[in-house]
Amino acid sequence: MTASTTAVRLAAAALALLATSAQAAPAKAARELPPRPTVADVLKASKPADWRPLDPENTLYMDLPTGRVIIELAPNFAPNTAANIRALVREKYFDNLFIIRSQEGFVVQWGDPDEENPKPFQAAKTVKAEFTAPIKSVGNFTRLKDGDVYAPQVGHVNGFPAARDPATGQAWLVHCPTMIGVARDTGADTGNGSQLYTVIGHAPRALDRNITVVGRVVVGMPLLSVQPRGTGALGFYDYEQPEQRTPIKLVRMAADVPEAERNKFEVMRTDSATYQAVVDAQRHRGGPWNKVSPGKIDLCGATIPVREQK
Amino acid sequence: MTASTTAVRLAAAALALLATSAQAAPAKAARELPPRPTVADVLKASKPADWRPLDPENTLYMDLPTGRVIIELAPNFAPNTAANIRALVREKYFDNLFIIRSQEGFVVQWGDPDEENPKPFQAAKTVKAEFTAPIKSVGNFTRLKDGDVYAPQVGHVNGFPAARDPATGQAWLVHCPTMIGVARDTGADTGNGSQLYTVIGHAPRALDRNITVVGRVVVGMPLLSVQPRGTGALGFYDYEQPEQRTPIKLVRMAADVPEAERNKFEVMRTDSATYQAVVDAQRHRGGPWNKVSPGKIDLCGATIPVREQK
Repeated sequence: MTASTTAVRLAAAALALLATSAQAAPAKAARELPPRPTVADVLKASKPADWRPLDPENTLYMDLPTGRVIIELAPNFAPNTAANIRALVREKYFDNLFIIRSQEGFVVQWGDPDEENPKPFQAAKTVKAEFTAPIKSVGNFTRLKDGDVYAPQVGHVNGFPAARDPATGQAWLVHCPTMIGVARDTGADTGNGSQLYTVIGHAPRALDRNITVVGRVVVGMPLLSVQPRGTGALGFYDYEQPEQRTPIKLVRMAADVPEAERNKFEVMRTDSATYQAVVDAQRHRGGPWNKVSPGKIDLCGATIPVREQK
Repeated sequence: MTASTTAVRLAAAALALLATSAQAAPAKAARELPPRPTVADVLKASKPADWRPLDPENTLYMDLPTGRVIIELAPNFAPNTAANIRALVREKYFDNLFIIRSQEGFVVQWGDPDEENPKPFQAAKTVKAEFTAPIKSVGNFTRLKDGDVYAPQVGHVNGFPAARDPATGQAWLVHCPTMIGVARDTGADTGNGSQLYTVIGHAPRALDRNITVVGRVVVGMPLLSVQPRGTGALGFYDYEQPEQRTPIKLVRMAADVPEAERNKFEVMRTDSATYQAVVDAQRHRGGPWNKVSPGKIDLCGATIPVREQK
């Protein structure tokens, strides 16, 4: 096998697995799927108005030794929790704390590992639960009409995966991978944002409406998801083995960083026609690699595109 | 906060996040959920007959520098591919090959990274696609009646997550995390099992019925899922940077290892009443930590218990 044919083979296999091949198919037997636009095609054709920048007042930079994680808060769903996290960041609470938990297929969590002498902070110690929010206060809800096992309606609000129930008038953020939740004690109102986690595995939907979900990791997810799994119960690191823990160098609000030093990322507007085309490209897939197209997309399977501004 | 109360707080938060707390709740306000059996409770009460050992002829040991990954093949769904993988293992094809790809939220893949001089093998170069199999040949299908976005019916067959369509008479393994698929080229029949991948993120269901799924990782998933993400397209490692790749020391069939040296793991029988109780414990969750119970479980959210034999 020559280098070039093997390269093609590998590239084809790779594209194949992503199942978004944009190759034009020559005329084929009738049973082959016709080619269709891929997500990459849709992004390439997108217009500046299809994107919004991250709001510096809702954007956190969390610097690990391996690089920067960028987090976007969702204050429409959790205004008080978002405000408390801003306060914690601004008093530099997270600086020099740690990743404290990494549980396979579930979550990576960060905060203070020290049970004996917890790091003090001025921000609120407890924030009233914000597990759901009134539908009318969360913003434009763009439905995904493919169905859902857990919620009556699912879709996107301002770049976040969400669900809602017209019967109760409530909406909530959904525990898809990259979403950030607020660890809490048994009482509903015991969370405060000083311990946060992000979902690294298949969406643990039973947590929906049981925890305040406050945002998502927009950039740098791989820095969190590859943290070695903790050897303690539930993936917590052993307190007696501090070398297991990755330190957090610092966390800053983007708004507090000089504008010239900020990262410039944009999120696709999920209420745009272009985002509908992104979803359609994942729902209806073309040949020649795909032999069947799913015809459906589940909420957490729908990509929410992020790009760096030029 | 004293050490003991903080320990309780952390333990409670941890349990909370797992949402399987078994603590007995004292009498509480009416709106609290009553306590219910957790998955741990069900496992504790399980009987030996609720479990089956791994079949040595369908069990692979893949040894990485960090430990052993144990894989179970599903020959009822992919008999020819399983046979070819056995042949590859028995000619020691995988020994000294590599993890070649790690793509965030998607898959980790292994095989031969060398495009110039691929490692030769005697096993079949191509195996006819086994994307689906007749319902009547795959074994006892235990339905999960909570619904699914993609398939008419989902459930479990012999410890594997599966779907079926009575209209076509076909069943197939589903791309839940830990499931193992056969990388292929554009042609449906171009896979052979020499490049395999496992799902590390939210279930990529669009791959269902587009790829031969041949088994799952039963033990050692964390050794694969934390592989540093590849810097090349689609998470492939850069061929010019071999230090990025984790080597595979060897892969052996359990049947070819002296019995005394085999790992003794058991998988819960998914057609048992006890497995229904496991599913129910995840579907209906009790207080005091849970404030709402999902009432549903999605296929890839349903744990398939594995334990080491005493």
